[in-house]
Amino acid sequence: MNTINAEDLVKEKHVVKVGNLAIGGRDLVVIAGPCAIESYDQLLQTATSIKRSGANILRGGAYKPRTSPYSFRGKGEEGLRILKEVKELTGLPVITEVMDARQIENIAEVADMLQIGSRNMQNFTLLTEVGKLKLPVLLKRGLAATIEEWLFAAEYILSEGNDKVVLCERGIRTFETYTRNTLDVVAIPAVKELSGLPVILDPSHGTGKRTLVSPAAMAGIAAGADGLIIEVHPNPEEALSDGPQSLDLEQFEQFMNRLDRVAETFGRSL
Amino acid sequence: MNTINAEDLVKEKHVVKVGNLAIGGRDLVVIAGPCAIESYDQLLQTATSIKRSGANILRGGAYKPRTSPYSFRGKGEEGLRILKEVKELTGLPVITEVMDARQIENIAEVADMLQIGSRNMQNFTLLTEVGKLKLPVLLKRGLAATIEEWLFAAEYILSEGNDKVVLCERGIRTFETYTRNTLDVVAIPAVKELSGLPVILDPSHGTGKRTLVSPAAMAGIAAGADGLIIEVHPNPEEALSDGPQSLDLEQFEQFMNRLDRVAETFGRSL
Amino acid sequence: MNTINAEDLVKEKHVVKVGNLAIGGRDLVVIAGPCAIESYDQLLQTATSIKRSGANILRGGAYKPRTSPYSFRGKGEEGLRILKEVKELTGLPVITEVMDARQIENIAEVADMLQIGSRNMQNFTLLTEVGKLKLPVLLKRGLAATIEEWLFAAEYILSEGNDKVVLCERGIRTFETYTRNTLDVVAIPAVKELSGLPVILDPSHGTGKRTLVSPAAMAGIAAGADGLIIEVHPNPEEALSDGPQSLDLEQFEQFMNRLDRVAETFGRSL
Amino acid sequence: MNTINAEDLVKEKHVVKVGNLAIGGRDLVVIAGPCAIESYDQLLQTATSIKRSGANILRGGAYKPRTSPYSFRGKGEEGLRILKEVKELTGLPVITEVMDARQIENIAEVADMLQIGSRNMQNFTLLTEVGKLKLPVLLKRGLAATIEEWLFAAEYILSEGNDKVVLCERGIRTFETYTRNTLDVVAIPAVKELSGLPVILDPSHGTGKRTLVSPAAMAGIAAGADGLIIEVHPNPEEALSDGPQSLDLEQFEQFMNRLDRVAETFGRSL
Repeated sequence: MNTINAEDLVKEKHVVKVGNLAIGGRDLVVIAGPCAIESYDQLLQTATSIKRSGANILRGGAYKPRTSPYSFRGKGEEGLRILKEVKELTGLPVITEVMDARQIENIAEVADMLQIGSRNMQNFTLLTEVGKLKLPVLLKRGLAATIEEWLFAAEYILSEGNDKVVLCERGIRTFETYTRNTLDVVAIPAVKELSGLPVILDPSHGTGKRTLVSPAAMAGIAAGADGLIIEVHPNPEEALSDGPQSLDLEQFEQFMNRLDRVAETFGRSL
Repeated sequence: MNTINAEDLVKEKHVVKVGNLAIGGRDLVVIAGPCAIESYDQLLQTATSIKRSGANILRGGAYKPRTSPYSFRGKGEEGLRILKEVKELTGLPVITEVMDARQIENIAEVADMLQIGSRNMQNFTLLTEVGKLKLPVLLKRGLAATIEEWLFAAEYILSEGNDKVVLCERGIRTFETYTRNTLDVVAIPAVKELSGLPVILDPSHGTGKRTLVSPAAMAGIAAGADGLIIEVHPNPEEALSDGPQSLDLEQFEQFMNRLDRVAETFGRSL
Repeated sequence: MNTINAEDLVKEKHVVKVGNLAIGGRDLVVIAGPCAIESYDQLLQTATSIKRSGANILRGGAYKPRTSPYSFRGKGEEGLRILKEVKELTGLPVITEVMDARQIENIAEVADMLQIGSRNMQNFTLLTEVGKLKLPVLLKRGLAATIEEWLFAAEYILSEGNDKVVLCERGIRTFETYTRNTLDVVAIPAVKELSGLPVILDPSHGTGKRTLVSPAAMAGIAAGADGLIIEVHPNPEEALSDGPQSLDLEQFEQFMNRLDRVAETFGRSL
Repeated sequence: MNTINAEDLVKEKHVVKVGNLAIGGRDLVVIAGPCAIESYDQLLQTATSIKRSGANILRGGAYKPRTSPYSFRGKGEEGLRILKEVKELTGLPVITEVMDARQIENIAEVADMLQIGSRNMQNFTLLTEVGKLKLPVLLKRGLAATIEEWLFAAEYILSEGNDKVVLCERGIRTFETYTRNTLDVVAIPAVKELSGLPVILDPSHGTGKRTLVSPAAMAGIAAGADGLIIEVHPNPEEALSDGPQSLDLEQFEQFMNRLDRVAETFGRSL
């Protein structure tokens, strides 16, 4: 086992404000929504429902990183327009992924929080650019990133002056193929003892299987996560991406009821 | 992602009796004790204390698998004698590791449950031999074993007629070196949806770090584990093996108090 | 990167004698034959053909470690009898796997070299038992064994007095699924700089694909391997195990012709 | 083992021209030079020497991706100026890494070939941008990229119209820590059977250890690589990055002599 040379790492406890919300305080924050924005109706229906179920932030991808160039890569600017309308109608703050420094300006007009995806965790020029903004950033752990590399990626943003960084554990790549990734739940308390940054968990990508999302999420809260990001789709069977790991609207509502009871046990509230 | 060809796997829910205890029912079972039996005093002091704190089963290794032949490999038969005396004095059922079919007879005279360690998860002749007994078996997942391989290893025991198999998730080997292993917490609900066997979690080997044992354990309970196996030593700094991941007696007592509150939230009792 | 605490490791160069052969000297040694002994005809046909093609040692499993207890697990003692007859008829020395200390006596009557399989690399009681013999041992690297653990497993045999240990690199388990394992070709020069033991390569298990066996084997020789172990079957499509990675008799003959030219370039002979 | 859904992949054999050189034909191509451009003298001395030893292309990083923002991140534009001068003086074509679409214009004025580093293998906007150029691109495999993901990353470039793509195997991340990465030598013939793209090997990053560079390189040639990329530094002990894996000028000369003999055996020339 290595010890991490952590002297360069930020240590003081960060609470990151997103609109009226605070990530890293007593309240758990739940981000929910579809993997990709597919249509106005799809996003509005999802947003209305997850808000009623208690979610705090709406997620929805306009630009999607996909393994194959021939897969659906998101609706781009049209997706952003839909996201903006649904945000205004529902009053939910929104988070969406940024893949390229040149997209930042357009995205920043809509988004309350930027997401850096796993594949871009060490896209250092992108990290540097979002470091120059005031917007909160959700930094997903890379597929094969050590905890040390993840924290140094955060440091790229922090060292540019943006201290609104929230980490997101979403599973690492291992030999196991039954789950889509291996969720490293213990990384949550590990990064908390090494840095002062809030951490949320993505049990959807972390498991890849709808039936495992809830137990994985509860495990994350028990391990000290400050929140969750969950894929929700009104009709997972017809989702253009990540259907098998998406909850439908009713499953999400039941999930939130369960989460409420669990949060209290761990001294958190929703 | 693969789907597992699970048609050969045992499906009906198993509750495994160890003495008066039942693993896989409503009650959580906590196994605690030192990695290795070092002396009569060490084991008795530990056993007395963990019993008072609420542990159900005493663990202690007499035969220790060690990477190097030049490391401390356990006290062997003397260790078994100590284990027997401490068992009789405290009334705690005991579990200890069996590494070789030829040790089974001696160990079975003392142990209430046999442990098959990670390195022997695919020692098929050993699995076959313990399959011929009536004793409960704790089958640890191999360092690089897929969930499928782990369940088929259990099937080696079950197919010989011994249906008292309890699975133990103890972390898998990945690229991450901050923790000793990567605890695959999601494997707990995964094996539960694939088989009917009880599962317990080993947060000590799974993390390798004392400070991470408690959050990892709580995560396991939240994910549906039927129990825990925890390394406890009266003086971890002087332990002959696994000191850095062992709780001391007071830390274990505090841990059990916290566990009590958490168990209830998840519909379990201690 | 870690440095290995190698002070306990054997350093002097070992050349291991198997009958008239020497593994670790100038001559490359080629072990070939079927994964499992299926019948007298299958083994005799294979042995006769590989001998003509230039192979030095016949392999054939009588006891097979299989993930599922319901798979073909070898012909056991009948397999040993077949192996003995074919050995006498062809004059080829033979190697076969030992999975249990209690099998050693019977196997040692037939085998010129014992194989410890990957799953048993840390079966320390088995290592200790073969350490008490005079027979050469082929020690396969475990699926998830570090180089350090592999060398210490060898040390279990060496420290008992048997210095006839040959290492076998056969691929490690990684996230890549296109090949059955990831062949760690660089481990060959690595163990050579850390120890004095001969190393051979298993490109059959290392790749899992017939088409990749030859390039993998040539890579191994280029990296300094002292020999190869290759799965050959008269009719791979009907093999009871490992068919997709087995060469047929003609493919093996062609392979040996190519190997002959390559060996010379690297200062080796067949 | 999975089979790759390869119907979308380019199949016809590609030979990629870089100046007068052809990568993927009979001639092996050797790229050599320092990890980072540190000074005019350092680069000129290296370039002059490696040219005399037979290298075909000069490498040198101006923009360096580094885990920590506080490490040396390259000399940037000054590095490019040095690279340009040394290229003109020596006549060697040059390759350097591009990390951001906004750097492409400046880099393309100097470079004969662009390198996409491991961390950017799935930086899809960068892949798309270099796909719009006519310049050859060396696409390094990501640390945890499957062969399938690597080939689809190439497809991002190819599908934009740039068919000058050369793949580079540089090791994957595994549990093994003795080497910096695990060089997946078998990936060379694997991508050759799946696509028509040339492949070169990076034994420097693949091993992380000077002593292992030569055997790893020879293994790569034996497995069918079309060339090599090697880190060379006039004074590795004082290198600002990657010193332990860099050959010095004399070691590189000896290496090229050995390579010459090996190439012929495998039907290649230098």
